[in-house]
Amino acid sequence: MNTSAIARLLTASVILIGLLAWAGTLPPDADLLASAREYFEPLPKVMASADNPLSDVKVQLGKMLYYEPRLSKSGVISCNSCHNIATYGVDNMPTSIGHKWTIGDVNSPTTMNAAATVAQFWDGRAEDVEEQAKGPVLNPAEMGIPHEQFAVDRIASIPDYRDLFNQAFPGQENPLTYDNMANAIGAFERTLVTPGRFDTFLEGDTTALTQVEKEGLNAFMERGCTSCHFGATVGGGQFDKFGIYRPYQELTGSTKLDVGRFEVTKNEADRFMFKVPVLRNVSRTYPYFHDGTVWNLKDATRIMGEAQLDEEIPEPELEALVAFLNSLTGEIPKDALQLPVLPPSTELTSRPDVS
Amino acid sequence: MNTSAIARLLTASVILIGLLAWAGTLPPDADLLASAREYFEPLPKVMASADNPLSDVKVQLGKMLYYEPRLSKSGVISCNSCHNIATYGVDNMPTSIGHKWTIGDVNSPTTMNAAATVAQFWDGRAEDVEEQAKGPVLNPAEMGIPHEQFAVDRIASIPDYRDLFNQAFPGQENPLTYDNMANAIGAFERTLVTPGRFDTFLEGDTTALTQVEKEGLNAFMERGCTSCHFGATVGGGQFDKFGIYRPYQELTGSTKLDVGRFEVTKNEADRFMFKVPVLRNVSRTYPYFHDGTVWNLKDATRIMGEAQLDEEIPEPELEALVAFLNSLTGEIPKDALQLPVLPPSTELTSRPDVS
Repeated sequence: MNTSAIARLLTASVILIGLLAWAGTLPPDADLLASAREYFEPLPKVMASADNPLSDVKVQLGKMLYYEPRLSKSGVISCNSCHNIATYGVDNMPTSIGHKWTIGDVNSPTTMNAAATVAQFWDGRAEDVEEQAKGPVLNPAEMGIPHEQFAVDRIASIPDYRDLFNQAFPGQENPLTYDNMANAIGAFERTLVTPGRFDTFLEGDTTALTQVEKEGLNAFMERGCTSCHFGATVGGGQFDKFGIYRPYQELTGSTKLDVGRFEVTKNEADRFMFKVPVLRNVSRTYPYFHDGTVWNLKDATRIMGEAQLDEEIPEPELEALVAFLNSLTGEIPKDALQLPVLPPSTELTSRPDVS
Repeated sequence: MNTSAIARLLTASVILIGLLAWAGTLPPDADLLASAREYFEPLPKVMASADNPLSDVKVQLGKMLYYEPRLSKSGVISCNSCHNIATYGVDNMPTSIGHKWTIGDVNSPTTMNAAATVAQFWDGRAEDVEEQAKGPVLNPAEMGIPHEQFAVDRIASIPDYRDLFNQAFPGQENPLTYDNMANAIGAFERTLVTPGRFDTFLEGDTTALTQVEKEGLNAFMERGCTSCHFGATVGGGQFDKFGIYRPYQELTGSTKLDVGRFEVTKNEADRFMFKVPVLRNVSRTYPYFHDGTVWNLKDATRIMGEAQLDEEIPEPELEALVAFLNSLTGEIPKDALQLPVLPPSTELTSRPDVS
């Protein structure tokens, strides 16, 4: 055996001993479940809202509008362009491409499970998914519709949509409004719930997670990741400062400094505060952080340790954390994946405008 | 009754008399059906190919690639961007938007029923849908992938795709090739058949068309529209000159002169020859002609009369022709509308590049 072989063997032994020593700390299943239930809960069936009660026809209309490219000035960008249902409600781009190939400022967060979170957008400037839906349509860098009435007129020029708004908002004198477009899209988004193995575990079946996933869950709670990432959506419940112990850009390599919620409140305490990302489906919602600078989930987890906990998480624990995070991938609802057939334009429909 | 009321009444009477006189020419149903069967046939269940036999897994893989934005350099443009299944295989744009917001030269033809036609692209430069599928991916103005191997490497970096290529092309030593990507996409496109009421009629149920639709069908055959628009797809069977009696741009308002198939063959006889468009679902595939200059189906039909037949088709007949054309709208296959969940990228997957 030569020196380098001995060195390799020694390294392997050290890792193995570290892993065994650390894995030994895993509590019995019943205790782990009890702890987990203090921080988390299973996803609801739908994410209901008293202000926007769901109906089948409203959800169907909302789905059509979600996939509707005519909600952009150009006629080619829909909600689904940046929040692709086929890829867990994201576009897997650092930041999205909008009207005239404009590059966005922040990463498009997933629409999956988003309705169950405290606020919308990274800086929380929209209260709920209904309010959020009104933003990108009118943003010149996103869908580029010049004003609300333009969107209303375009959709109202299509008889099928007029009928659907009448059915989705019964008893309203003028149901086809910009607000109701957003209400319909919001209603659809409230169905974008992605239950998976973690819910099965939380419901009491502790075999739903593997040993290493349980180790990761335990580490996640022991480390205090749950201070920010808690609840049914494992995140999204509050705002927190990104870079508590080190400026985030030193770790992420971000070239542009985003001050987060400070932009909205102008309150100095909100500088670098961002909405805590939802970790459900995190294996699919790369690249990570508000500016999509980090592609690898292990790197992102390591950075979180350094930036938020001032700790260098050792390799075996990091692997277990990533295994736990991967277990948070759920099922996209089948109905959402069923593309709607969109109704044709009429003579009155404003033409696509790519300028 | 004042003068203008009398004038309106007279105009209405003239139209009514014209309509009645002309409608009287409709042959009995059995004769109309017999004539129709000389020109047309029902759509097949799938559009089979001896060179590219279909299997469930190949079609499923092809569907994933059809909806796959990573087949573009930017990571945001898929086949479905310009050939949207939700809008009958088109984007309803005069010409499409490609990489870096490049405006295309010609209108994106529908992928629905396209596999049953004589050749692909307006100028017929691809023999079949498999060959066609290889074009846009590498076109710098469309999906912008720099070269074939780049696309192969990106897809091969994703384990789920490697598995699916193995299953879809069994017995091949190296199934994940650029050609097989196109074969898979072509296989999916061969399922994009949209049967509708016209097929029911051709199968013998003459009640499937209304009176005015039958009048339109009769006029369509009597006028000789069937010289070019024939077969199961009501078009797509051959190339013909656009502008036999008058230069097309005088009628369409086209600002750019496209010489059509001459570009491919450099044969003077092919100047202004284009693939005859498929009229299946023509009510949904606006705007019309190779450059998408005409939005209204009635206008397009009138222009066809003048350009191709040297005839000014009178109003009631034009209405009947449009009614017949509207009856050619069929059903988009449910399987095609079911969005596939796309597999995640890996460390080896080349990153989106919007430059």
